[in-house]
This record gives sequence, C-alpha cells and structure tokens, in this order.
Amino acid sequence: MSDPLRVGIAGLGTVGASVAQLLRQDAARLAQACGRDITIAAVCARDRGRDRGVDLGHARWYDDPAAMAASGDIDLVVELIGGEDGAARATVEAALGAGHHVVTANKALLAHHGVALARLAEKHAAGLYFEAAVAGGIPVIKALRESLAGNRISRVYGILNGTCNYILTRMEREGSDFSDVLADAQAKGYAEADPTFDIGGFDTAHKLAILTSLAFGTEIDLDSVYVEGITNIGPEDLAAADELGYRIKLLGVALVTETGIEQRVHPTMVAKRTPIAEIDGVTNAVAIDGHFVGEVMLVGPGAGGRATASAVVGDICDAARGIMVPPLRVPASELAPYQRAQMRAHEGGYYIRLSVYDRPGAFAAIAARMAEQGISLESIVQRAAHSPGSSEPKPVILITHETTEAQVREALDIIGADGHIERDPQMIRIEQA
Amino acid sequence: MSDPLRVGIAGLGTVGASVAQLLRQDAARLAQACGRDITIAAVCARDRGRDRGVDLGHARWYDDPAAMAASGDIDLVVELIGGEDGAARATVEAALGAGHHVVTANKALLAHHGVALARLAEKHAAGLYFEAAVAGGIPVIKALRESLAGNRISRVYGILNGTCNYILTRMEREGSDFSDVLADAQAKGYAEADPTFDIGGFDTAHKLAILTSLAFGTEIDLDSVYVEGITNIGPEDLAAADELGYRIKLLGVALVTETGIEQRVHPTMVAKRTPIAEIDGVTNAVAIDGHFVGEVMLVGPGAGGRATASAVVGDICDAARGIMVPPLRVPASELAPYQRAQMRAHEGGYYIRLSVYDRPGAFAAIAARMAEQGISLESIVQRAAHSPGSSEPKPVILITHETTEAQVREALDIIGADGHIERDPQMIRIEQA
Repeated sequence: MSDPLRVGIAGLGTVGASVAQLLRQDAARLAQACGRDITIAAVCARDRGRDRGVDLGHARWYDDPAAMAASGDIDLVVELIGGEDGAARATVEAALGAGHHVVTANKALLAHHGVALARLAEKHAAGLYFEAAVAGGIPVIKALRESLAGNRISRVYGILNGTCNYILTRMEREGSDFSDVLADAQAKGYAEADPTFDIGGFDTAHKLAILTSLAFGTEIDLDSVYVEGITNIGPEDLAAADELGYRIKLLGVALVTETGIEQRVHPTMVAKRTPIAEIDGVTNAVAIDGHFVGEVMLVGPGAGGRATASAVVGDICDAARGIMVPPLRVPASELAPYQRAQMRAHEGGYYIRLSVYDRPGAFAAIAARMAEQGISLESIVQRAAHSPGSSEPKPVILITHETTEAQVREALDIIGADGHIERDPQMIRIEQA
Repeated sequence: MSDPLRVGIAGLGTVGASVAQLLRQDAARLAQACGRDITIAAVCARDRGRDRGVDLGHARWYDDPAAMAASGDIDLVVELIGGEDGAARATVEAALGAGHHVVTANKALLAHHGVALARLAEKHAAGLYFEAAVAGGIPVIKALRESLAGNRISRVYGILNGTCNYILTRMEREGSDFSDVLADAQAKGYAEADPTFDIGGFDTAHKLAILTSLAFGTEIDLDSVYVEGITNIGPEDLAAADELGYRIKLLGVALVTETGIEQRVHPTMVAKRTPIAEIDGVTNAVAIDGHFVGEVMLVGPGAGGRATASAVVGDICDAARGIMVPPLRVPASELAPYQRAQMRAHEGGYYIRLSVYDRPGAFAAIAARMAEQGISLESIVQRAAHSPGSSEPKPVILITHETTEAQVREALDIIGADGHIERDPQMIRIEQA
C-alpha cells in the first residue's frame, strides 16, 4: 500500500464537518477502494472548540489556511472557505504553487479565476478537482471531463439552483404568489435571508460558466452569461404553462450556435413528461448533448452538507488513486477564447402573455404585428377577464413556433407602442428537452 | 506528449465501426484531451472488404482476435465480439495476460466471469473497462467506481433494457396488447427476432449483477438474480396503474437488507411524477442511493452503435490518461461473497389484480384473507364487469401497504383455494422511487 494521502481541510462549516465525518467514519472502506489511507492531517477553522461530530484530535490546527495549504504537512487541501477572492483564492494558489492537490466546492472562485488556477495546477503538476462546485452531489464534472470525452458537446443545460426550483415547484402546485412562497422558503431555510444570488439567477450563471468551459473547451466567461431570474414569474404563468403542456424551470443553457456560444440563464418552458420537466423541489439536473452519445441527464441533490461532502470525498479518492486530468478537460493553454453568441440571435419558441384591452380589433392588430415580423403562432389562448363584463384587460397567451429573440422583441415593442396592451408583456423562452 | 496508445479493435459490427469512426474523425481533439495520440493499430473482423465508413488502411488485420490481443502491436484491445465464452473470453484473457488494457461492452462475459477477469487484470497491472456493458452511453460504471466512492450504497435500481421500456411505453399510451406491440417493435427493429433475452428480463439481470458487485463490493452472482419478464403485463394493468397514480417499468433492483442483498428484475410500479416514472421509450435510467449523496439518477441512451461507442471511447480515453482503478471498485481479492436475500423476505407494497366471481360475499372473503395474513390495504378498486349483468368475473384491484412477499403469496394461495377467483392473480411489486 502506498503512503497515506494527507488531507488538510480549510473551512469546517456544514460541508467541512461532513467531509471530516465521512473520511473518519469510513476510513477503512475508503482505504480499501483507494489502495492507501486517507488521513486528516491538518484543519483550519475559526472556532477550535465547536463540536463538529468528529474527533479531529490528531489533526494539526492552523489559523492561516494558506499557510496550511503550502505546508509540508499535507498533500491535498480541501478549500471550503468560499468567495471568489480573499482567503479562498490565497489558499488554493498557495496549495497549487506548492504542488499540492486542491479539492474545492467554490463556484465563484472557479467562475472568476478558473482558467488561471487550471494553468497554475498544470504548471505544478497538481490536481484541481471541483465536482462539488456545480450541482452538488451530481457527478457532472467527471461526466464532462472523462466519461463523455469522446463527444463533441453541442449543448449543456440544467436546473442548477435548488432554491429556485423549490419555489417554482411550490408555486405550480399551490397556485401561490412568488413572494409568499419565497417568504415561506426563507422561514424553512430553503432560501437565504438575502435571496438575490439564487433567485436572480446568478448562482446558476456561475455554475453554467464552469460547465460551458468544460463542455466546449473555451475559456470561462462569467460576464457573458445572459441572466434573468424568476422574480417575474407569476402563478398565472405556471397555470398557463400547465394548460399548454409545459412546466417552467429556471434553466442554465449553454449552446453552440453558428455565431458563437450562447450562455443564458432564464425561466424556461419545458414540455411535460420530459425528464427535466419532472425534476421537482430542491433537486438539480444537468443534461448533456453529445454528438455520439445523444443526450445524457444526471439528476440528484444540488446542495446540502452531506451531498456536497460526497462530491468532495469522491474527488479526494480520485487524487488518492492518482486520477488526474486537466482541470478544464483540455490543457488550459489550449482553451479557445470564448466567443459570445448574441441573445438577439437566439432561436427558439416563445411563450408570450399579454394583457390586452378589450376593444374591437385589438387582437387582430396584435396577430397582424406578429405576422409582420415573420412570427408564426403554434397556440393562442384567450381567457375571460377576471370579472366578466368588466373593462379590465384580458390575458392573451401566445406560443410561437421557432423564431428569433430579435423578432420577438421587435414585435412586442411595436405591439406595446400600438397601445393595445397594458403593462410590459411577459415572455418566457421554450427549450426543447 | 507521451507515446501513442495503440488500440486493437476485435469486432467491427455497428459498435466497432462507430468506435473506429469516432477515433479517426476526432483524433486531434482526443489527443488534445488525453495528452497523447490514440491510434487504431490493429483490427479483427470476419469481413475485410465491407465498407464501414472509415479508413482502416493503416491498421494491421488479424484473423484471430486473441492473437491480436496478445500481440506487441497494441496496448489496448476493444472487445466487441460478444458472448460469455468462446472468442470474446479468449481475447480478453489473452490481452490481460499480456498486460494490455481491455475495453469491453460485453455484459454476459462480465456477469459470468467478471471477478476472475478483474483478478487477472489486477495481477498483470492492466486496466479492465466496461462502461459500455451496462446502460450503454450512461456513465454509471464510472459513477459507482469513482464519483460516488465516498458513499456506502444502499440501493441501485434502474431501467436497463430499452426494448422492454419501449414496449411498456407504447402499451401504456396506446392501450395495446403486449403481443401486438412486440410484433410491431420487431418489425421496426426495436426488438430482436428472438426477444426472450430482453422481454424475459435476462438482459436486465446481467447488467444488474454487474451493478450489484460495484455497488456493494460483493462477488458477481448472476444466478441469484430473481427474474420476471414483462410478458405477463396487460393493458388493463397499465390502465389501472395510471388510474392509481403509477407507471409500470421493468426495473432491475439491488438492495441491502438485513438478511442479505436482494437482486431482482420484475415489472414494477413507480409513482408518477418521479423522474424514473417519466423515462419513456428506449431510454435507460439508473438510480443510486448513497448514504451521503442521497439519490443520484443517470438517464440516457442504453443501446445503439453511437451511444455505446461513446462509452467505449470514454474508456479508451481513461486508459490513455492513465486512469486505472480496480475493475470492480475494490480489489478482486477483497470482494465479499454475495449473500442472497430470499425473495420471500422482500418487503414492499404490492399491486394485485384479481378476477373475482360475482357472488355475494366473495369480496368480503378476499378482504378477510388479506387481513388474516396481516396485510393492510391502501386502495381497493372494483370495476364493473366488461358486460354489465353478465356472470363473468369482475376485476378487483388491491394496493397493499408495505408487507412481505411471503405474506402476499400465502394470502393469494389461500384466496385461490377458496375458489372465489378465476385464473392466477396478477401481482406487481411497488418500488419507492
């Protein structure tokens, strides 16, 4: 049996404590599978006294995680500090610079500095593992980096944020308003006190930017991700989607097009009875379209201390077994620049909900404007006003055949200017799953 | 860059030709990802003249695949001959004995001889890769062997045979009889001329036996798999399942119980709106329950030349990159003996469909017999006879709460002996997904 792999854990919150528990409780089983012992040689956390449900008595305590990462005490550092800069970045850079492997769950760090860190890892022949950074316990990084290496990937998309999916699922089932479900989710601990990062789509964007690089061999470009959150989705949209045979999910989608690579995060209509449409609650799912494999989808828990620890320990086992590949699948020096496709060129179907003033000719005028822009309609649903006989605007729902974002936006601008509709129209993109 | 990895392909049917095409068409991209060239150094197939859509002019042709496998011309052999013995086994043994890596899609070979082959591979420090042998393009072997290495697995289950799922999906949607859909599936090429291996559940059993070993660290024991096929499922069962909130899938399930490990293949009721219930057509899915990760499910194409080639080439890339782990996750010498759980001890809910003679007291007698066996009922559906007023038996459908197989079988035996029912009862197990 080889020498033990000496692990240093930086950050002993929920995930870190779970990692330590798993490594200690299952030490014999992990040693059997990996052909060597995995020991917790060092830890770094603010509070030394807190009970974390695991005996860390044999580990050396550090106050400075970067000092631990660079020390001769360890072979691998688990970075669970979080944040795109500061101590997390310093720790990872110190470890890689010393030729130590890094396992991290830090999506922000990778989305902002992933290419530079991959280059540093390769320079020092160290491994950089981050299965836990995207979709928690789902092994999507390994699938893209290794299992599907034979494929040219054309699209990767998924439900990457459990909070948003939980909120949309409850809104759909209960017919509730966004704000009511959000408040309840916050009370139950499924949403943060400041939920902007989740519900605004930014968390999904970070994860998507990492997946894009792995899928297409391009540099990570977080700033180019088009982002819309779910705050604008109402129960009337979920009800209409249901009636028309769809569900609404916050998807991250990265797609090769003729003009570049689309990276977009937005509420999306997906057809019922496709597997992605049936992913409910906090569960995540990632689908990958490859030119030989077709579509593969991975489903599982996207967050939580234990599920994330599963991914971290899987990565530690990889390192222990000597499994080391370029962090971003191809060597960092060979990544292509990211070429952004313009959202205006996006092609797909659209769901459009309008509040139309109940006047003769209003609907005909709207239909004519859509036709002028070359948009053909698959479905039209006109509902009665909430109070029959009232003069309040009537909801009209249109599902378009495939068209471009530019055409839809142009048509909606003109329809708005015509004065037939109240408020801004609702527009939700449809994705073929 | 390292020396090229020299591949020999034994068997150039649909999968073999797809593998050769992918390796040739994407040679530059694969070399970039793997850090070395992958060359087709040798091939072995019966017909040298056939057009396989790829130029194999530079490869050395062999008539004897075992001779190719042992030769100094190659570093890795791709075994696509098929069959549990004969040329396939000889080829794999020759390659491993020479210290050459093996990539195979051969489930029968592994289900029968996997442990011995793993031992041989480990003895000669060769890799044995078989992602393509279970669930085609879905990376489930790697998930169990590597990604989820941190977890103690409690259950693995899935839809592992596309033919059965295609037939059940069409029966459900069309309300058609099994035999009609099978005949059409045969005409369309979705089912073999002799479909027994698929529809009898034996193909699923082979794959399950391999997954069981990987999941639980036990020796492969194909003979201990309990197997029921789908030939007994009627459109009335699919309709009743739909009404009761279920779908029927042929599942392979391996499960740790107090008395041993269950391995079972049978038609199974799964609740609608769970991801596995929505897997339609030829698609496969495998779910894995781990003590830290919770449940992860992988979905994708389970067969087909290109999807299978994707898995084969993923394995070849692993070998090229030096990724090598014990074939059955833990070293073959450390696998535990397989301890079989008796089917009679199986615990779960049951769907039971009876044809009850329309006589006073018949139903009460049946209900009393169930109660005597300690079986409590969740739902009871009594249908009108097909011809109202006729004396023909009426279908009665029972859904039980959790009980044991022994109790259900005992109750059904007694009910049968009581003379209230026509024919044998239909009994379908319910699985919590």
